[in-house]
Amino acid sequence: MSKILLIGASGTIGQAVMANLGARHDVITAGRSSGTHRVDFAQPGTVAQLFAAVGHVDAIISTAGNLHFGPLAEMTAEQFNIGLQDKLLGQVQLALIGQKVLKDGGSITLTSGIVGVEPIRNGANATAVNAAIEGFVAAAAIELPRGLRINAVSPTVLAESVGVYGPFFPGFEPVPAARVALAYQRSVEGAQTGRVYRVQ
Amino acid sequence: MSKILLIGASGTIGQAVMANLGARHDVITAGRSSGTHRVDFAQPGTVAQLFAAVGHVDAIISTAGNLHFGPLAEMTAEQFNIGLQDKLLGQVQLALIGQKVLKDGGSITLTSGIVGVEPIRNGANATAVNAAIEGFVAAAAIELPRGLRINAVSPTVLAESVGVYGPFFPGFEPVPAARVALAYQRSVEGAQTGRVYRVQ
Repeated sequence: MSKILLIGASGTIGQAVMANLGARHDVITAGRSSGTHRVDFAQPGTVAQLFAAVGHVDAIISTAGNLHFGPLAEMTAEQFNIGLQDKLLGQVQLALIGQKVLKDGGSITLTSGIVGVEPIRNGANATAVNAAIEGFVAAAAIELPRGLRINAVSPTVLAESVGVYGPFFPGFEPVPAARVALAYQRSVEGAQTGRVYRVQ
Repeated sequence: MSKILLIGASGTIGQAVMANLGARHDVITAGRSSGTHRVDFAQPGTVAQLFAAVGHVDAIISTAGNLHFGPLAEMTAEQFNIGLQDKLLGQVQLALIGQKVLKDGGSITLTSGIVGVEPIRNGANATAVNAAIEGFVAAAAIELPRGLRINAVSPTVLAESVGVYGPFFPGFEPVPAARVALAYQRSVEGAQTGRVYRVQ
């Protein structure tokens, strides 16, 4: 049984990851407004506070992070920066600080998204941020010491969310969150590093 | 003859782009400390001021942008944010504001770099930022109106810079800046959009 820190535990993917990994591991939950611990990527410092509270873990999983969605024609630098500071730098921080609190051989699993490689209308910020997360994972993997691993999971639109997000993903085949959760299991319980697990 | 705004004109690539495109076009230069106009990605607002001064153009080229290089083990969120705010958001701003001042059929050409797809030690910020730039270009291309185009050029290490940067790129084959400049020519004078021109 591993000790796993799950950030974004209350989201649709987070709940599915909890249902999968919680059956075999000690999963500690964290989130902006729910879970055992509070952490908010928009509040610098809360990531460090989270790790100070939780201590050493075997795995860190993030299914959290906000992006800006909107037409390119109206997008401002401030709006674009939302995704950079939240979903991107928030998750990067989990890895930068997490590398110091992970036990030997531990893993970090971040979340990107299909828009990183399949652009959609209104999605310029999402494509850039998701591509950056996947790049970061590939680069960080070659520098991590002590057998530490880092991967990303890139889910497509969720079956559970298709009522809300479906119109933004024309012709994209939705997948149930339980299938997406398998990719987090592969990342945590498998041996690979620097991988992007695409669930689409 | 097109009117082209070149940001980063004093750099090694910028000079080579100037030598290539300047022979056939009216190239207006801009940079942090040289060129006809001042612009500094680290100073929000200077991009808008640049376009206000230059007016409508046929093409925008950026060969500018700073990154953080350093060991992952010591990297802080603040250091990682340097590349996000400068090379990434600076160039994104050129596109977000530039889409309004470009003439119909005009083009935007940004610069990423080989580390975006080929990670090196100390390069986690560079990989993430360059991957994000390439993602942004792919996404922005599907939303730009009026026949506007956007591409990126991804150079490998330059022959001119190999004395300084060579040790960070073991076994990478350097290319002369004049070869890299051809990719900018292809982007500006060609018809493609959403492309990454890799020069390696």
